[in-house]
Amino acid sequence: MDITQFSQINPPQRLLMGPGPINADPRVLRAMSSQLVGQYDPAMTHYMNEVMALYRGLFRTENRWTMLVDGTSRAGIEAILISAIRPGDKVLVPVFGRFGHLLCEIARRCRAEVHTIEVPWGEIFTPDRIEDAIKRVRPRLLLTVQGDTSTTMLQPLAELGAICRRYDVLFYTDATASLGGNPLETDAWQLDAVSAGMQKCLGGPSGTSPVTLSARMEEVIRRRKCVEEGIRTDAHHDGVDEMVYSNYFDLGMIMDYWGPERLNHHTEATSALFAARECARLILQEGLDNTIARHKLHGDALLKGIMAMGLETFGDLQHKMNNVLGVVIPRGINGDQLRKLMLEDFGIEMGTSFGPLHGKVWRIGTMGYNARKECVMTTLSALEAVLNYLKFPTIQGAAMQAAWDHYCTGNPQ
Amino acid sequence: MDITQFSQINPPQRLLMGPGPINADPRVLRAMSSQLVGQYDPAMTHYMNEVMALYRGLFRTENRWTMLVDGTSRAGIEAILISAIRPGDKVLVPVFGRFGHLLCEIARRCRAEVHTIEVPWGEIFTPDRIEDAIKRVRPRLLLTVQGDTSTTMLQPLAELGAICRRYDVLFYTDATASLGGNPLETDAWQLDAVSAGMQKCLGGPSGTSPVTLSARMEEVIRRRKCVEEGIRTDAHHDGVDEMVYSNYFDLGMIMDYWGPERLNHHTEATSALFAARECARLILQEGLDNTIARHKLHGDALLKGIMAMGLETFGDLQHKMNNVLGVVIPRGINGDQLRKLMLEDFGIEMGTSFGPLHGKVWRIGTMGYNARKECVMTTLSALEAVLNYLKFPTIQGAAMQAAWDHYCTGNPQ
Repeated sequence: MDITQFSQINPPQRLLMGPGPINADPRVLRAMSSQLVGQYDPAMTHYMNEVMALYRGLFRTENRWTMLVDGTSRAGIEAILISAIRPGDKVLVPVFGRFGHLLCEIARRCRAEVHTIEVPWGEIFTPDRIEDAIKRVRPRLLLTVQGDTSTTMLQPLAELGAICRRYDVLFYTDATASLGGNPLETDAWQLDAVSAGMQKCLGGPSGTSPVTLSARMEEVIRRRKCVEEGIRTDAHHDGVDEMVYSNYFDLGMIMDYWGPERLNHHTEATSALFAARECARLILQEGLDNTIARHKLHGDALLKGIMAMGLETFGDLQHKMNNVLGVVIPRGINGDQLRKLMLEDFGIEMGTSFGPLHGKVWRIGTMGYNARKECVMTTLSALEAVLNYLKFPTIQGAAMQAAWDHYCTGNPQ
Repeated sequence: MDITQFSQINPPQRLLMGPGPINADPRVLRAMSSQLVGQYDPAMTHYMNEVMALYRGLFRTENRWTMLVDGTSRAGIEAILISAIRPGDKVLVPVFGRFGHLLCEIARRCRAEVHTIEVPWGEIFTPDRIEDAIKRVRPRLLLTVQGDTSTTMLQPLAELGAICRRYDVLFYTDATASLGGNPLETDAWQLDAVSAGMQKCLGGPSGTSPVTLSARMEEVIRRRKCVEEGIRTDAHHDGVDEMVYSNYFDLGMIMDYWGPERLNHHTEATSALFAARECARLILQEGLDNTIARHKLHGDALLKGIMAMGLETFGDLQHKMNNVLGVVIPRGINGDQLRKLMLEDFGIEMGTSFGPLHGKVWRIGTMGYNARKECVMTTLSALEAVLNYLKFPTIQGAAMQAAWDHYCTGNPQ
């Protein structure tokens, strides 16, 4: 191998307007490049405690066990599912997009008995529909996705917590794509577990996954407790339920590492923790409600511009996430050719789609650091230019004007 | 919560001379702070291919499947074990420290039938001893640790590959703490799988785990293939063996993500990948053999200094890793008090120990970016000062002279 061919890293400048990852906030990248400290350094454990406090703020919870799972967002999902689901447990998954299928798949790997209800992509479930299924299936866990980027839909969760308590069901949601850009009230909605990701509305790089667990969920997980040989003492006792299939994702061990015993498990991914701390700090400085309002403002401005361009949107707009929009690829336009021109000639990334929407829908994100006016305006004008180049007619100036109008009315400052 | 109490991140400057994490090379931190690109951006997939090539160089292998698992080093360990071990499989683990116990524990969680052989902490196994156990147990996999930081020992592996082939055993080693600082020859030693970590000799932050898989191992894993609902097409077929317990760690899926199909799985932790690329690039620029020699040079200089200080070392020095040294805590000295003084008054972190060595042995690392003369000299002089302060007598100047002498003879340039 000729090592001289591997030059210093120098990624092209891109404006990432897909469904995530998006450009990280430069302040987060700077925080992440801080020099390391040891994992039991008082400075490090202090930062870990701060991260717990900051994410309680983001998750709107008093949950003691609010911490990071080292891995991308699906690491957080899997840690919760594999720690909570015992082989043979019944779980119910309302599937309205790709990430519902993912929850089913992970649950099957945990040897759960998986029951699903489905709606077509682009729709969400009413609480009644979910309650009926709970009555029929009597699951131990309800596994939901809050915002499924594959369809851009946001499932309403506010009423589900009370239903779950009524039937003694543990209530989990995957908020990877929604947290920070859409309301989520862990305690008020009686959620037992939530996981999130950094690379969407939180404005960081993927690599660590914030999770929060209710006291009820803690109790379930503690029943499967296990302490590693080599660091266990006579004071340690294992739980009564069957051992979790994973060591890395055993949340009982991760709690013991984040808790006062600081029992060694993995070596915390310090740089990712620094980044996660800065993401949460920036949002709470802005004010979480303001951050959510900012996502709505820019998401709506994009929507107005897209509609004025004569493009059709995908899915139920009443239940769209603030931070991502599905745009139907017009007849006669090659979706991938347009995305290639956007990337190569304007440095702007738009998203493609999965499964039934593949080749039919583009996805445009306005989230995290890229939930900004200049990102929306730049994307709209480039998109219009490329569409015109590909012979799709638009009314000159209408899309930009619609976005400007929205900013004038929607953002009176 | 009063958000103003959370200030910009500003970790104290530490010299991390424990068993890892150690200070990251500043060039790695800079690479990691590069702005993100999309996960299917041609620039990103090019970087992924470069990472595969670079780590083939570090692992000394032609293995096609040489890639990263997003998580800390035990994520790489678990991905290999959970993907390769089927419930009921027999595995053999030679345990010579804490991380052998960890392999047993993960294997038990994979529902393996776990067989162990043990030596006291501070010793390693002869090939004969391992071959005898293989003949007796007839395992499907041999799970080894190359360098166990808990004891500082380096298990010789060169002869084990041939033994494993003779008995049709799959051969894995955990090289988390050893890769880059000690010889490892994946292909020459006929290893079927190796995993590593960033925060030891590779000089990066923890957060991603390089792994390499032989063609034999790929075949085993492919038999458990599974493609996610929501992205699967009619062209996809599942394997014949039982589904892996984990989605996140299913190496079949991770191969499909790194391979030409680029089948969506997780969202690659781009910043961690940038860091991993820079770590490998810097080592291959230095020359892997030179990097290993540098670890031996500084590890030996530390050893000479420690011995001349009148301190006893731990374990079989013939089989010590180059990059970490066990030092017996002298009678009358409180190990934690000394470490606290080192940290608070000199900014230097030394390691404590686990299990049977807890309270009895300090561990001092010289690895990655900290395998440098000034780190060794600074640590020795600070340690001598603190020992003297705590009334442990030394011969003035002897330790420093021994290290200087070693540098004069051991490093003739």
